[in-house]
Amino acid sequence: MDRKATIGVLGASGYTGAELVRLLIRHPRVEIALLTADRRAGQAMRQVFPQFSPFDLPKLVSIEDVDWTGAGLDLIFCALPHATTQKVVRHVLAELPAIKVVDLSADFRLSDPAAYARWYGHEHHAPDLQRQAIYGLTEIYRDEIRRAHLVANPGCYTTCAELPLIPLLAAKAIDPDEIVIDAKSGMTGAGRAAKEEMLFSEVAEGFHAYGVGHHRHMAELDQELSKAADRDVVVTFTPHLVPMNRGILSTIYVRSRKSSPEELHAMLLKFYAREPFVHVLPFGEMPQTRHVRGSNMTAIGVAKDRIAGRAIICSALDNLVKGASGQAVQNMNLMLGFPETMALEQVALFP
Amino acid sequence: MDRKATIGVLGASGYTGAELVRLLIRHPRVEIALLTADRRAGQAMRQVFPQFSPFDLPKLVSIEDVDWTGAGLDLIFCALPHATTQKVVRHVLAELPAIKVVDLSADFRLSDPAAYARWYGHEHHAPDLQRQAIYGLTEIYRDEIRRAHLVANPGCYTTCAELPLIPLLAAKAIDPDEIVIDAKSGMTGAGRAAKEEMLFSEVAEGFHAYGVGHHRHMAELDQELSKAADRDVVVTFTPHLVPMNRGILSTIYVRSRKSSPEELHAMLLKFYAREPFVHVLPFGEMPQTRHVRGSNMTAIGVAKDRIAGRAIICSALDNLVKGASGQAVQNMNLMLGFPETMALEQVALFP
Amino acid sequence: MDRKATIGVLGASGYTGAELVRLLIRHPRVEIALLTADRRAGQAMRQVFPQFSPFDLPKLVSIEDVDWTGAGLDLIFCALPHATTQKVVRHVLAELPAIKVVDLSADFRLSDPAAYARWYGHEHHAPDLQRQAIYGLTEIYRDEIRRAHLVANPGCYTTCAELPLIPLLAAKAIDPDEIVIDAKSGMTGAGRAAKEEMLFSEVAEGFHAYGVGHHRHMAELDQELSKAADRDVVVTFTPHLVPMNRGILSTIYVRSRKSSPEELHAMLLKFYAREPFVHVLPFGEMPQTRHVRGSNMTAIGVAKDRIAGRAIICSALDNLVKGASGQAVQNMNLMLGFPETMALEQVALFP
Amino acid sequence: MDRKATIGVLGASGYTGAELVRLLIRHPRVEIALLTADRRAGQAMRQVFPQFSPFDLPKLVSIEDVDWTGAGLDLIFCALPHATTQKVVRHVLAELPAIKVVDLSADFRLSDPAAYARWYGHEHHAPDLQRQAIYGLTEIYRDEIRRAHLVANPGCYTTCAELPLIPLLAAKAIDPDEIVIDAKSGMTGAGRAAKEEMLFSEVAEGFHAYGVGHHRHMAELDQELSKAADRDVVVTFTPHLVPMNRGILSTIYVRSRKSSPEELHAMLLKFYAREPFVHVLPFGEMPQTRHVRGSNMTAIGVAKDRIAGRAIICSALDNLVKGASGQAVQNMNLMLGFPETMALEQVALFP
Repeated sequence: MDRKATIGVLGASGYTGAELVRLLIRHPRVEIALLTADRRAGQAMRQVFPQFSPFDLPKLVSIEDVDWTGAGLDLIFCALPHATTQKVVRHVLAELPAIKVVDLSADFRLSDPAAYARWYGHEHHAPDLQRQAIYGLTEIYRDEIRRAHLVANPGCYTTCAELPLIPLLAAKAIDPDEIVIDAKSGMTGAGRAAKEEMLFSEVAEGFHAYGVGHHRHMAELDQELSKAADRDVVVTFTPHLVPMNRGILSTIYVRSRKSSPEELHAMLLKFYAREPFVHVLPFGEMPQTRHVRGSNMTAIGVAKDRIAGRAIICSALDNLVKGASGQAVQNMNLMLGFPETMALEQVALFP
Repeated sequence: MDRKATIGVLGASGYTGAELVRLLIRHPRVEIALLTADRRAGQAMRQVFPQFSPFDLPKLVSIEDVDWTGAGLDLIFCALPHATTQKVVRHVLAELPAIKVVDLSADFRLSDPAAYARWYGHEHHAPDLQRQAIYGLTEIYRDEIRRAHLVANPGCYTTCAELPLIPLLAAKAIDPDEIVIDAKSGMTGAGRAAKEEMLFSEVAEGFHAYGVGHHRHMAELDQELSKAADRDVVVTFTPHLVPMNRGILSTIYVRSRKSSPEELHAMLLKFYAREPFVHVLPFGEMPQTRHVRGSNMTAIGVAKDRIAGRAIICSALDNLVKGASGQAVQNMNLMLGFPETMALEQVALFP
Repeated sequence: MDRKATIGVLGASGYTGAELVRLLIRHPRVEIALLTADRRAGQAMRQVFPQFSPFDLPKLVSIEDVDWTGAGLDLIFCALPHATTQKVVRHVLAELPAIKVVDLSADFRLSDPAAYARWYGHEHHAPDLQRQAIYGLTEIYRDEIRRAHLVANPGCYTTCAELPLIPLLAAKAIDPDEIVIDAKSGMTGAGRAAKEEMLFSEVAEGFHAYGVGHHRHMAELDQELSKAADRDVVVTFTPHLVPMNRGILSTIYVRSRKSSPEELHAMLLKFYAREPFVHVLPFGEMPQTRHVRGSNMTAIGVAKDRIAGRAIICSALDNLVKGASGQAVQNMNLMLGFPETMALEQVALFP
Repeated sequence: MDRKATIGVLGASGYTGAELVRLLIRHPRVEIALLTADRRAGQAMRQVFPQFSPFDLPKLVSIEDVDWTGAGLDLIFCALPHATTQKVVRHVLAELPAIKVVDLSADFRLSDPAAYARWYGHEHHAPDLQRQAIYGLTEIYRDEIRRAHLVANPGCYTTCAELPLIPLLAAKAIDPDEIVIDAKSGMTGAGRAAKEEMLFSEVAEGFHAYGVGHHRHMAELDQELSKAADRDVVVTFTPHLVPMNRGILSTIYVRSRKSSPEELHAMLLKFYAREPFVHVLPFGEMPQTRHVRGSNMTAIGVAKDRIAGRAIICSALDNLVKGASGQAVQNMNLMLGFPETMALEQVALFP
């Protein structure tokens, strides 16, 4: 058997870090050689995530203490907070030009430095890397990802909305000025930081919208949907929080002057016919987040509105898997030459 | 003190029935004299809903066994399944022409017999009563309700969407052809019938849309929004189920060529300034269902979309209170000449 | 009508503070004149708890800024963290010897200074007040509470376990050396502090024990059960966390050489026959937390174990109401000469 | 590669059936050749459980329509309701004496016909098979299971309690007359039948005990614990329902005159040292159900009570995996000569 690839996970004490570890533990071609978590440095992974108690894993270390040249890593995942990431990645790539990087933060998703500065309020710290980074929406950028050294893994909301919208915009089948995305996410999307508004007692038994009219994921949506449509696209996008752990459902309202809802459905069905991780349901059936829980699958449904010329699309994925760590592993598989579905075949856990 | 009014609740074994009992027990001017529940006839209310164990309540009886003329009732609430209601109400009103009725089913909400037949698939069984029934959206039809004998209490989804939309349509402030209502409801909205898809294990930890493109509440929305706009209005409406017990949040996307989002907000603020049960939040703040739980309050927020000419409205209520039994008691208070807020002053239960 | 009593709530930004406000808003004989919250001083209550948006309430102030002699308060509730409370209460009583105090912290629950020092690791800061404080388990100490100036409101776990056990121990009907209390609590019992282990994503869809073998509520249980039994009682007590907001269920395993389970049930039924807030279910029926949610009720069930001489008792209450703020208002009613049930008649909110 | 074993799942429309399919789909040495579900016969598995949409699976058929001799099955799992199972298994084994059977119902768990009749109210329909069946608690009966033709897979509650108790009773380390098991289960343990008390709105936000003093799992506990202790053991056992989908936590109160809690812990640690699916935590640490979710792991913690001579044990597993279908696959692996952990290596899904 081939030598296993040696992998590091930077930021292993958050939910996307833990999800990477969950998937990589069962990956037959990789070995987890490095786990960092600054505030938990010195602890065992089992103290931070007890589900890993039965497994042998490296101790958590601080990023500052990593001996990059000695570590012999083939690829690192960065599951660090936005903004710190760009500094870390620049530093690591300076020391190890041959290492491959899948970054799960937002830092390298926007390719336009001006757009980055506008949405994030400061200049990018590694503009040269920003230009090289490949946007990691696997089904759309597969070939570029295969050759990439730095992949910017997409956001969870954006993956969920872009997978159904990009083929339809690229085919000019829907009106780019009339897209409304009403998105609903489980709580793990908000991360593991201890904030009052994320306490169980604040969240359970309730529902609400947030970031109405202004949410950073909009920049990423604008970029990718505009690229697909080959013109400027600005969508209406409203995220909501659902009292559940995992899952995003996007309800997308679109208009089409020339294609019927049935034709839009047929386009998506054809576009994703051979994709292992995008499943287009029969026309009129709508997906549920629970049926993709824990899996790397995106499920898409298309239905007809009662108003002529309008269609309703629902798209569902697990925000920690296809919306983050699963897609990151899918990209790693491409970058390291492994079968794309390796370690991602797990069936959804329902109920 | 005045004689207490004598009240019956038909269909007391469902959730809206129990919610009526919860509110009426603490109403100082009424006495619960009759509780019916066909399948549970002969049982005590505490066997059906143990939270009533500490209270003295009439035994559950079958509707067929009620001696209507002997019961001496002033008003009945009908919390019966759709379709059976119209037969029961016709029968009761034939026996007791002076009795007042608040019906919580959909049976008398549509005033047009043709619309009823189209949406429900059969002719109405009491078309004369259908014509007399007053639509019980209290804030809009207060005067008619005061004089009514038969009030058709609105649906939960429709109350939630109509309260913000009616004033804006009546003022011709928004485009009637460009309304998208993305609605999310807790599980009690689906009732207490034992169905597989409503089991805890099917519902918890997941989210989905249902009735996409075709839902009976659309007929009620069409009727009331058209009346407000004084022209035909057909909206896009998608309901979703949230893993929580109570609450509806409607995210409503509107367009306006002449009024800014701030002006739309000001209109709603002014329209509901003196209403005890509609609370318009400061501009840009959005309501959460948890903050109206158990109360008769509707909370409304208006925010600006980043796309010029579009606004986003969120409206939240407790589907069992303002969305059903609370509004029914509010209507009863008007019909019997009691203060409108009596027995409805309870503060929301959060957390 | 009589002048309303003037009330202050110290620590209004926590859950027990909010619950006090919820109950007091609807109390016909009191007026909320002071709300403190150090970290949120200067804010409106609606910013801290949006469910109070529709109500006029005093602004939050810092305790340090309160002019105690000018405030003219009749009674204050202390819903402050353990340990700070004793200093605050000592200070307030020094300035206003006539004010009455209901303290919801653990600071004055233990009457023995040595026990306090052992469990809390430091000497009490107000030992003279500690001696005067009356333990506020209303059903047991009603007369003392009526005359008290300082009431130490019991803990939620302890109220739930003591109500069934005290009468049985006082009657010497059960073996004091053979009591096992397996207690399960909703998350609001853990308060509103932003801690990682209380995040929704950490809590939902899981169950666990905590504080096994050592939990501060044990000191309070020991004290009250020993007093009832008139000898030393040490119980086995294990608390658990349930993924729900409100409610405690205690499953209590007891032995009796002389009384059958049916006789134990009869004793409790008789002891609580006239109590408005303790409801003993028919023999063999067990309570559910959901049926007391939002109410001040404690529901108790007794069943027979299949092992002779053993009985199983379940006791359920809402930790924020009878387990905290409801019992505090019940005590206030006694201290100020109001009817004991005033503002506490609310029926449980189910579903 | 070897020929794949051909497998049937009888009762594939319930939760344990779906969980078998989830695990078997990823098993490299088996092929699912038969799925039965009487009420859903003729449907595709994806209509009954949409999470299987992306997979090719046999259509659901009625048991009556199965051509047993033509099907060429190596092993069947029976996930049928109690009582029907024994007739079906008798029939299948009559037709196919060489087939192997793992039965997930309670039908073959009790080896004593008298005990069966007492607990189930009727004579067993296949007493000869009842005698041959091997109790499938893998860690205890591994050798017998390897040679078995009919394995009676243990119940979820019983697996959870027996794994920690059997070694301690066998070592005579704890008092067999002083065992209290306070067990808490997620809702999937109650199955998928549409019953009012299992609706989301009845279950969410509440907690309660059921079957107090009498529950059929007691018979199974009695049998296995008595066998381990080599004398009659009767335990106190109280099950409760937790508002979550998956997981059982048993809090077990034991006494020991001769062994300290630390010694009890050491015994369990040693007994399970090489077991892949039983993980004994460090002394004093307690398991949480969420950290075994979706995995075949049982996690066990031992702590000291503050009362001398008493210890508290917590044991956690996923009721659908180690408590049902995972252990069934573990047993299948032994019966068919596969590595015991095959298809069961999945890491727990948290959060």
